[in-house]
Amino acid sequence: MFEEKKTEWLRIAESLKPTLHRETVRPISGIPDHALMENESIILDFGNHFVGHFTLKLSSQGSHPDAPVWLAVKFCENALELNETLDGYAGWISKSWVQQEQVHIDVLPAVFPFPRRYAFRYVKIDILALSSKYQLVIEDASAEVTTSADDSVPVPLISDEKDIAIDRAALRTLRNCMQDFFEDGPKRDRRLWLGDLRLQALTNSVTFQNYDLVKRCLYLFAATADKEGRIAACLFTEPKVEADDTFMFDYSLFFIPTLLQYIQATGDQAAKNDLLPIALHQLVLADAQFDPETQLIRDNDKLGWCFVDWALPLNKQFCAQAIWIYCAQAALQMKADPLLKEKILHRKEAARKYWYDRERYLFVSGVKRQISWASQVWAVLAGIVEGPDAVACLDAAADCPDIVPMVTPYMMHHYAEALCRVSRKTQARQVIRDYWGGMVENGADTYWELYNPENPDESPYGSPVVNSFCHAWSCTPAWFLRSGILEENA
Amino acid sequence: MFEEKKTEWLRIAESLKPTLHRETVRPISGIPDHALMENESIILDFGNHFVGHFTLKLSSQGSHPDAPVWLAVKFCENALELNETLDGYAGWISKSWVQQEQVHIDVLPAVFPFPRRYAFRYVKIDILALSSKYQLVIEDASAEVTTSADDSVPVPLISDEKDIAIDRAALRTLRNCMQDFFEDGPKRDRRLWLGDLRLQALTNSVTFQNYDLVKRCLYLFAATADKEGRIAACLFTEPKVEADDTFMFDYSLFFIPTLLQYIQATGDQAAKNDLLPIALHQLVLADAQFDPETQLIRDNDKLGWCFVDWALPLNKQFCAQAIWIYCAQAALQMKADPLLKEKILHRKEAARKYWYDRERYLFVSGVKRQISWASQVWAVLAGIVEGPDAVACLDAAADCPDIVPMVTPYMMHHYAEALCRVSRKTQARQVIRDYWGGMVENGADTYWELYNPENPDESPYGSPVVNSFCHAWSCTPAWFLRSGILEENA
Repeated sequence: MFEEKKTEWLRIAESLKPTLHRETVRPISGIPDHALMENESIILDFGNHFVGHFTLKLSSQGSHPDAPVWLAVKFCENALELNETLDGYAGWISKSWVQQEQVHIDVLPAVFPFPRRYAFRYVKIDILALSSKYQLVIEDASAEVTTSADDSVPVPLISDEKDIAIDRAALRTLRNCMQDFFEDGPKRDRRLWLGDLRLQALTNSVTFQNYDLVKRCLYLFAATADKEGRIAACLFTEPKVEADDTFMFDYSLFFIPTLLQYIQATGDQAAKNDLLPIALHQLVLADAQFDPETQLIRDNDKLGWCFVDWALPLNKQFCAQAIWIYCAQAALQMKADPLLKEKILHRKEAARKYWYDRERYLFVSGVKRQISWASQVWAVLAGIVEGPDAVACLDAAADCPDIVPMVTPYMMHHYAEALCRVSRKTQARQVIRDYWGGMVENGADTYWELYNPENPDESPYGSPVVNSFCHAWSCTPAWFLRSGILEENA
Repeated sequence: MFEEKKTEWLRIAESLKPTLHRETVRPISGIPDHALMENESIILDFGNHFVGHFTLKLSSQGSHPDAPVWLAVKFCENALELNETLDGYAGWISKSWVQQEQVHIDVLPAVFPFPRRYAFRYVKIDILALSSKYQLVIEDASAEVTTSADDSVPVPLISDEKDIAIDRAALRTLRNCMQDFFEDGPKRDRRLWLGDLRLQALTNSVTFQNYDLVKRCLYLFAATADKEGRIAACLFTEPKVEADDTFMFDYSLFFIPTLLQYIQATGDQAAKNDLLPIALHQLVLADAQFDPETQLIRDNDKLGWCFVDWALPLNKQFCAQAIWIYCAQAALQMKADPLLKEKILHRKEAARKYWYDRERYLFVSGVKRQISWASQVWAVLAGIVEGPDAVACLDAAADCPDIVPMVTPYMMHHYAEALCRVSRKTQARQVIRDYWGGMVENGADTYWELYNPENPDESPYGSPVVNSFCHAWSCTPAWFLRSGILEENA
C-alpha cells in the first residue's frame, strides 16, 4: 500500500530537516582550582540540562607527562545518576545507553572533543590514571549544545511561581528532544516514537510552534509504513530512515489525532491530501482485531502490543477499544464518513454493554474484568462515558482500593486531560502541581520518562540507571498551562 | 652552555624527521563467521607484531540496532597479556599504558577507526553490550601500521634456523621501534632514551642502516641539553621537543659512544664538528663526581641515578666508574687528548686498586663490597681488566654463588659483548641462543623489555601488565649475528 507515494513522502520529510541551533555552554561550577592527581574525581555542573558535544581542554603541571591520562567520564541528566553504577545491572534495556566513557589522552596539553552526543547536566570525571610525575589541569570544559527549537517562545500567562517552574521544565524537555526530529529522549532511545510525537506536537503548538518539524515527522512515519500500509510505532533516521519492526496497536492509530492536530493548527491542505488516506487506513487495519459480532476488540494476548502505559499487570483490552474510538473520532473531524460514525457508536455501545459496571461506575477489562486507572481515563477521553457518569467514573476510580495504578507521565497526561474533559479543572491543575511539580522539587530541569512519587527508583527496565530523564512524553504541562484547557470555562 | 647552537640543532633534527612507511594489514585469524551477541568475546591475531592504527568495520544482523554497541578492546603485544587484568594493579608505572579501551558506537553499519596508536599482535574484543534485537557482525578488521625502517635489509649470512628466527625477532623489534624517532617501546614509553638509542643505532648499522634517524636523535639530544649542557636520559617530541627532567649518569655519557658509532659508520664530519664539543662536555660534567684524590667515583647514594640494569639491590659505584672510562675511551677515538688519556689510566688503576679482589678475580662495588655480574661485565668492557684476567673474571663470576644477577636484555647485551671481548665467542653465541632464543621459544615476535627465564612474570614495575614486549634495548641479537663479532677471528 502507498508504495508509489513513499519516495516523494521521504523527499518532503528530508526537505524539512532542520538546521540545528548551536550554542557553546560552560559549567557553572566544578572546574577545580588545583591540579588533579590519580584517583581524584570532579563533578562539573552545567546548571541546566543540555544536549550536545562535550570538550575538555587539558594541560598538566609538574614534569612533562610521561604516560597517558586515563579518564572515566560519566554524563548524567540529574544528580541521582552520579552515584549509580552498572554493577549487577541485568535489565532488558541495553546498558550501552548509559552515558559513561573511558578515554586515554596521549599528549598534553590537549583539546579533547568527545566524539558522541550526550544529554546531561552533570559531567563526572574520574582520574583513573596519570603518573606520579605530573598532575592534570582542567583548563576548560565546554559543550556545543543543539536544539532545533527556536527559543523565542511566547511568555505564558502564568503568575504562580510554581507553575512558572513547571512550565519551564516542560519547555526544556521539549526543546532538548527537538533535534533533527522529535526524539523521545536525547539520552535514550533518541528515536521518533509516535506516542511521544503526538504529545510533543501538542505542546509544540502552544510553545515553539515549529510545525515544519511536526510535518517532517508525519511524513517520515508515512514514508516508512510497511507493505500493508501499517505505520510503525517508531523509526530510525540513522544511518538512513527506516522504521523499527515494532508495531503497537495504539501508536499506529495515534497517527490520526497527530495529523488532525497538525492540520487544525496549520490548515496545511497539501499535507492533508497526502496523509489522510494512510491515516484512515490505520483504522481499516485495526478493524481486523474486532469481533464483527460483538464489536469488541480482542483481548491482550491476541492483540499484539498495545502500549497504553508501562504497567506490566495492566490488561489493555478496554483501552485498545477506547483508543480506536478516540482515533476514529479524530478521523471524522478530518473527513465525514457516515459508516465510520455508525461503527464508532456500535463500538462505544459494545464497550458499555460488556465492560461497564454500572453499580460501581467503573469500566473493566479482559476476561478477569480488571479495573485500572487507564481504562477509566480512556473511557472518558473516548467519550464512552460522558457527563455526570464520566465524573462518577473518575471519582469511583479514586475511591477504588485495588485499582491498577498509573505509572508514567504519559499516562498521567491522559489522566489530567480526562479531568479537564469532565471539568475537574482544579483537580487537573493539582495533578500537574503534585506530579510534575514533584519532579521539579526533586531537582528536575527536564521531566523524566518515569516518576513514581512513592518510589523514585521505579524503572520498567530493571534499573533506573537506564531511565531517561528528559523524555518527550513528559513535556505536556506546558500545554496544560498555556492552552487554556485548565481555565474553568474552557 | 651551547644555548646559541640549540635552535640550529633542533632545526637539523626536525629536517630529518622521517616519512613513515604505511601498510594496511589484516588478522590472520579470529574474525568470527557468525554474528556476535552481548558478552561474546573474540581474539583477532594479526600474525606478527605491528605498530599502528586499528579500524573495525561493523554491521548488524537482526532488527535495526536500537541501542549503541559497547565494546571493550584490548591490544596485546603477546598472548600472555590477553588474560592479564589491571585488577589490583599497584605498580609505580602508570596503568594508563595498558592498551585497553572502551568504546560506544551509536550507528551501524560503521567504519570505526580507533583514535590512538597501538603496539599489538592480538586484539581482544569483548561485547560489553548490544541489545537483544540485533547481533554484531565484524565485517572487517584492519590496521594501518607504520615504521620508518626500510624493509630492504641485507640477508644475513646465517644458516642455522634458530639463529634466523632470533635475527628475525631482533629486526622486528628494531623496526617497530623505528617511528618518528627511535622509540624505546611502541607500547610504553614511546620515548627517545639514550640507553636504548645506543643499542638501536648499533643494530641499525648492520640492518636498516637508517643513519639519518640516528643523526636526528643525536641532534635531538644535543638540542635539549640543560643549561649546564648536560644531556638528558630521555626526551619527548610531543607536543613539542622537550627533554625529560630525568638525568642518568651513564645515559648522559653514552651520548659519546653513540656519536662515535655514527661518525665511524658515516664519516659525517659536519655532525662531528657540531656534536663533539657537547659530547666531550659530558665527561667534564661527570668529573665533578670523582674524588680528585683517589680518582674514585662517588657511591650510589651521592651519584644520582646511574641505570646499568633494573636490579634494585645493585650497587652501581663500580659500574659508573667503568662506564665513564668506557665513554672516555670512545671520546679519545674522536679526538686525541693526552690529559684525558692520562685521566683514564688513573681511573682504571684506581678501580683496580680499590675494587679488585685479586684472589677471586672479581671486582667489588660500594662500601659493602658487593659482587655483581654488572661490575664484572663493565670491568671487561671498559678494559679495567684485560687478557687472561678478563677471562678469569667472567669465569669467576659464573662460579660465584651469591653474585647479584643480571635482569634485563640490556644488561645481557653487555654480557654477551664482554664475552666476545674476551674471545669467548661460542659462549656468547650460546647466551644469545639461550636468552633471546628463549623468548622466541616463548612465542616472541619481538623482544621483551624484561625476560627472566626462571620467572616470566618478572617486572620492575610491580606487574607484567605494564611491561613492554617490543623493546628497543633487546634488539641487539641482529648486531651479534650480522656484525661478525661472533666469528672466532673477529
